[in-house]
Amino acid sequence: MADTLHLSADPVELTAALVDVPSVSGDEARLADLVERALREQTRLEVVRSGNAVLARTNLGRPSRVVFAGHLDTVPVNDNLPSRLEDGVLHGLGSVDMKGGDAVMLHLAATVTDPRHDLTFVFYDCEEVDAVRNGLGRVERDLPEWLAGDLAIVCEPSNGVVEAGCQGTMRIEVRTRGARAHTARGWMGENAIHALGEALRRLEAYEPRQPEIDGCRYHEGLQAVKVEGGVAGNVVPDAAVLTVNHRFAPDRSPEQAERHLREVFDGYDVTVTDVSPGALPGLGAPVTRELVEAAGGEPVAKLGWTDVARFAALGMPAVNFGPGDPVLAHTRQENVQVNEVRRCVEVLRRFLG
Amino acid sequence: MADTLHLSADPVELTAALVDVPSVSGDEARLADLVERALREQTRLEVVRSGNAVLARTNLGRPSRVVFAGHLDTVPVNDNLPSRLEDGVLHGLGSVDMKGGDAVMLHLAATVTDPRHDLTFVFYDCEEVDAVRNGLGRVERDLPEWLAGDLAIVCEPSNGVVEAGCQGTMRIEVRTRGARAHTARGWMGENAIHALGEALRRLEAYEPRQPEIDGCRYHEGLQAVKVEGGVAGNVVPDAAVLTVNHRFAPDRSPEQAERHLREVFDGYDVTVTDVSPGALPGLGAPVTRELVEAAGGEPVAKLGWTDVARFAALGMPAVNFGPGDPVLAHTRQENVQVNEVRRCVEVLRRFLG
Repeated sequence: MADTLHLSADPVELTAALVDVPSVSGDEARLADLVERALREQTRLEVVRSGNAVLARTNLGRPSRVVFAGHLDTVPVNDNLPSRLEDGVLHGLGSVDMKGGDAVMLHLAATVTDPRHDLTFVFYDCEEVDAVRNGLGRVERDLPEWLAGDLAIVCEPSNGVVEAGCQGTMRIEVRTRGARAHTARGWMGENAIHALGEALRRLEAYEPRQPEIDGCRYHEGLQAVKVEGGVAGNVVPDAAVLTVNHRFAPDRSPEQAERHLREVFDGYDVTVTDVSPGALPGLGAPVTRELVEAAGGEPVAKLGWTDVARFAALGMPAVNFGPGDPVLAHTRQENVQVNEVRRCVEVLRRFLG
Repeated sequence: MADTLHLSADPVELTAALVDVPSVSGDEARLADLVERALREQTRLEVVRSGNAVLARTNLGRPSRVVFAGHLDTVPVNDNLPSRLEDGVLHGLGSVDMKGGDAVMLHLAATVTDPRHDLTFVFYDCEEVDAVRNGLGRVERDLPEWLAGDLAIVCEPSNGVVEAGCQGTMRIEVRTRGARAHTARGWMGENAIHALGEALRRLEAYEPRQPEIDGCRYHEGLQAVKVEGGVAGNVVPDAAVLTVNHRFAPDRSPEQAERHLREVFDGYDVTVTDVSPGALPGLGAPVTRELVEAAGGEPVAKLGWTDVARFAALGMPAVNFGPGDPVLAHTRQENVQVNEVRRCVEVLRRFLG
């Protein structure tokens, strides 16, 4: 594991160095320490630490400001560490989601010395867990002035294409109740785990919408992400919980999405435990158009929820733009093409130059 | 909580005192300490401690020996402590399964001074969990001579009727595999929790056999007792496990029961994690007939698995005989009629006198 991050050198090596410091949500302290130390070496930057978030910005008096945001955490390790570079592809946990994007940001922070816009870089924790723990949310509450700007670029993987808007996400708990009994006389009780069968059947049969909004095609989803139940090996269980994650297109509000889920799980006890609204694709702002031009190609719909929605809620134009294929995010085999890391650096350097 | 158990006084008060010392499986040390201390005060008895099992026996040189067995542990607390005596009914965790039976044994150990048979009393731990942890199994391995005798009486609740044989129990894990993906693109993965839906459907539709053997009616069962799965709140899970408990009549061997479960869950990955064979009702032995006579009434089938099967496997006649309704075992509202505790003491005193 690296003791020092070399921001100005090769952004691909920097990506590998970031991957090799494990940072599963809640355990980002070591990586945040390294990022903080490396940024403090850039004397042009004002740096602030907030929990496991690290914030850095220029104060050049430019008429406009671009805010870059990247999360430092990853989903749990899945036999995919340390990083491995092979045939121009860097493999490893977080390579695509989103340490490639973090490396692009860190490299720009160290090497773009005379940008057209003032720049803010926000590296934060706990994006991969419940919204209530999200480090960017904490920064928004504690240091709101650090998020202000004319455009936010969230460097989540987008195949190096500007992705507009994003889908919302909602987590619910579907609870069943029964009555305990000794399993030797199971018919005296009521099995709460068996009662989840119908809910799983509805999940299997579910057909997600794929609406088109402003020329962007979204794709909803409904997936069980956790199931839990049981008292003891010889007891008919009286309670079980199924946690379901719903991804909804930005033409639905959180309230509409909740209403929909209550219909899907009609007859069940449903509780919303976590929700983040989507963001409509909003491509009108001049700074956004400059970025789209620098990137080339057409903007597309963002399927995953990203903190774009958080900036959109603050009233700022906000897009995703980062290296790597988002389809690989959260898979064991996640990886990023090294050329794409380099191309993202070049596009953003052109945009800021 | 009692500091001392008064064995010779009222067996109902003794039951309440035992209930009021919590002893969930694995946490029996305090109760075993009290039982050991009280038995050591009975100078006629040879007493041995083995882990959280306490063994006591007479050595009167009688031509025959009766072994009494009772487990000290209970299923988890379910808002049903401390004990409560109301209208001749003692309520509380373990009152029926099986501290009523333990109290009968302890009271006999202290008050039957001149029995027709030599007597062995075995109080043991971890009956309510996987067979591999069962304290009686440990005693069987470490101190086999302590289980030898001409009749074993397991004082599990049997409504004060002699119950013959017992059903076998088997636990299996039904495992599903899938492929992880980000829930924003759920269709790229394969949801292992959804795949449990079909297994739960089969459990719901399952029709248990109710065979009659030697005039005793058995009643099989198949119940999910645990379900577990999930990686993170935004990841399509690639693994899930359903634990199922099967109770099978003693006309099936463990091998036949396993074959049956593999048919029921055809297409699934099934592992047997725990098994205890049943015991056929065997009512021929003379000492057993004496007990049946002393108890009055007809022997009936035992539905729950009890350590009767363990003694049966050792080649000894073995029956269940204890106070309380086994249907109440493992329910929150478990309780025992105080008259039945007293009647069991009287029946056994007559049988031993």
